[in-house]
Amino acid sequence: MQRRSFIAGLAAIGWLRATPAFAQTDPLPSWNEGPVKRAILDFVPRVVTTGSRDFVPVAERIACFDNDGTLWTEQPNYFQVIFAMDRVKALAARHPEWKALEPFKWVIEDNRDALAAMGEKGMLEVMVATHSGLTTEEFRQAVLDWLATARHPRFKRPYTDLIYQPMLELMAFLRSNQFKTFIVSGGGIEFMRPWTERTYGIPPEQVVGSSGVTRYVLQAPDRPVLRKESKVEFIDDGPGKAEGINRFIGRRPIFAFGNSDGDQQMLEWTAAGTGARFMGLVHHTDAVREYAYDRNSPIGRLDKAWDEAVRRGWSVIDMKNDWKVIYPFEVK
Amino acid sequence: MQRRSFIAGLAAIGWLRATPAFAQTDPLPSWNEGPVKRAILDFVPRVVTTGSRDFVPVAERIACFDNDGTLWTEQPNYFQVIFAMDRVKALAARHPEWKALEPFKWVIEDNRDALAAMGEKGMLEVMVATHSGLTTEEFRQAVLDWLATARHPRFKRPYTDLIYQPMLELMAFLRSNQFKTFIVSGGGIEFMRPWTERTYGIPPEQVVGSSGVTRYVLQAPDRPVLRKESKVEFIDDGPGKAEGINRFIGRRPIFAFGNSDGDQQMLEWTAAGTGARFMGLVHHTDAVREYAYDRNSPIGRLDKAWDEAVRRGWSVIDMKNDWKVIYPFEVK
Repeated sequence: MQRRSFIAGLAAIGWLRATPAFAQTDPLPSWNEGPVKRAILDFVPRVVTTGSRDFVPVAERIACFDNDGTLWTEQPNYFQVIFAMDRVKALAARHPEWKALEPFKWVIEDNRDALAAMGEKGMLEVMVATHSGLTTEEFRQAVLDWLATARHPRFKRPYTDLIYQPMLELMAFLRSNQFKTFIVSGGGIEFMRPWTERTYGIPPEQVVGSSGVTRYVLQAPDRPVLRKESKVEFIDDGPGKAEGINRFIGRRPIFAFGNSDGDQQMLEWTAAGTGARFMGLVHHTDAVREYAYDRNSPIGRLDKAWDEAVRRGWSVIDMKNDWKVIYPFEVK
Repeated sequence: MQRRSFIAGLAAIGWLRATPAFAQTDPLPSWNEGPVKRAILDFVPRVVTTGSRDFVPVAERIACFDNDGTLWTEQPNYFQVIFAMDRVKALAARHPEWKALEPFKWVIEDNRDALAAMGEKGMLEVMVATHSGLTTEEFRQAVLDWLATARHPRFKRPYTDLIYQPMLELMAFLRSNQFKTFIVSGGGIEFMRPWTERTYGIPPEQVVGSSGVTRYVLQAPDRPVLRKESKVEFIDDGPGKAEGINRFIGRRPIFAFGNSDGDQQMLEWTAAGTGARFMGLVHHTDAVREYAYDRNSPIGRLDKAWDEAVRRGWSVIDMKNDWKVIYPFEVK
């Protein structure tokens, strides 16, 4: 009786979600049956079940997710680029010199092709340049204000609505099995942190991203601020993702998901550890419900990483066939 | 009956440690009664008790601790400098050029004054220079090998024995109240991470420190490593501690402890938030059991931060009078 109530008590506080009761309910209801869902539902019990030969202690259950194109949509451009473009337009009257200066002139002229082709490094340069001088607090507020009012050009919804329901389910499944979930994104770390906790359940200290230099200055006696400077500090993309994981997390993930060539080294770094690992890619194949693009896209190009995934047997999501729904607002 | 067993179940798994049962046992048995212990035992219940006007949600209970001189001893030199000096001596035969090159010649000549005076930036330069070329895995192993064999010159014990028992109790007390404890140290991030989890209960992803550049390279097909380069990337000291907290954690701490002028901006950054906060300094006043030093010490100088602490009413530990024991091995 005592023992039964104890178990009931654990269940009441959610403790039992951490035990492997995998068969009872589908933890991934928005996923169609298929090789990727099967691989996930094979991997997780193997690494969390005590006595399994692939058992991984809780402290080492690190899962890393790219953001743009992996957790939310990245078309027609990375949302952070759209944010930066909106900022440039809002500030253009105060900066007449931008009319002749790339990449600002592209923004003012609405030259989407040039902007899309400038890549994540160029994106960050726009970010850093248009936001230097702001304090970290002011920048945070600018991000939240933009998210509250801006709407996606195709879906006419807030950008934070355009997150992938199947990936929310995957992250919740991993966390219920005592994984610690991290974002490892080429996007700006201070662009993501104001909303990732509410949107994905990922707290700021578990967000790794690109960054500009900040400088500690006293605005008044005993009133320090961190001011954003116009200098790139770290690009968390490509090889930088492995370097960023090492710098910020200091432990090798056993599970990683990306969608583009910028995620290739994160997946390689994950794969190079010992023991069971899971490497996955989202392939955008659904032009009707989301977007379809891969080898020739300037945004989120998936080419070399795809070849490597096929060669090494990593999981590749076929969005059109693997996902029952794309966005949370489609869930009935 | 059901409810009673439920509570018993929670207690059995330690859940009830998180509820404020402060009066029952002394969470800080190695601390003498005094203003700092009183301040801690006043602060923690105020911020964790539901309904308190100073209540802080669990996600925002961030506590940051300096390492050298705050969690472990830093005399007669920062332990990492001693580690680096041991590495220089071990590698000197392979580097004849070091005999004429500072700071390596100081190490080979055992010029402790010059080494002590070079500060944390110089320390990191020795670190980075003597360890460039190693992979992160090789470096980790070098740290663990050194800790397993090296002995402190005065105490004749492994360096990881020279941690402060009262601070272990403080961190455990905070964690039992659902604080997340971080190290924010001028020391090298990769020097600390191999042992902080076992020694302090702080996992690698909660360690912020100085770093050198690492580079992702393929040692063989599908065999990537991160190689340490001879370039300083980030100095997590002074203003860098506020910048490092922002970069790595992305949330302002409500509790911070340091011991030297290098911690001043971390404490200022903590103090500048809204709501209840705790700022503390360890003052090394015990030449008999540990060391006594402050304004004129080249290692762990405590001068400007001390003045600011006095002016602003921050807590300053008088080690000789506030701590019953210094090290865990003194506990009966």
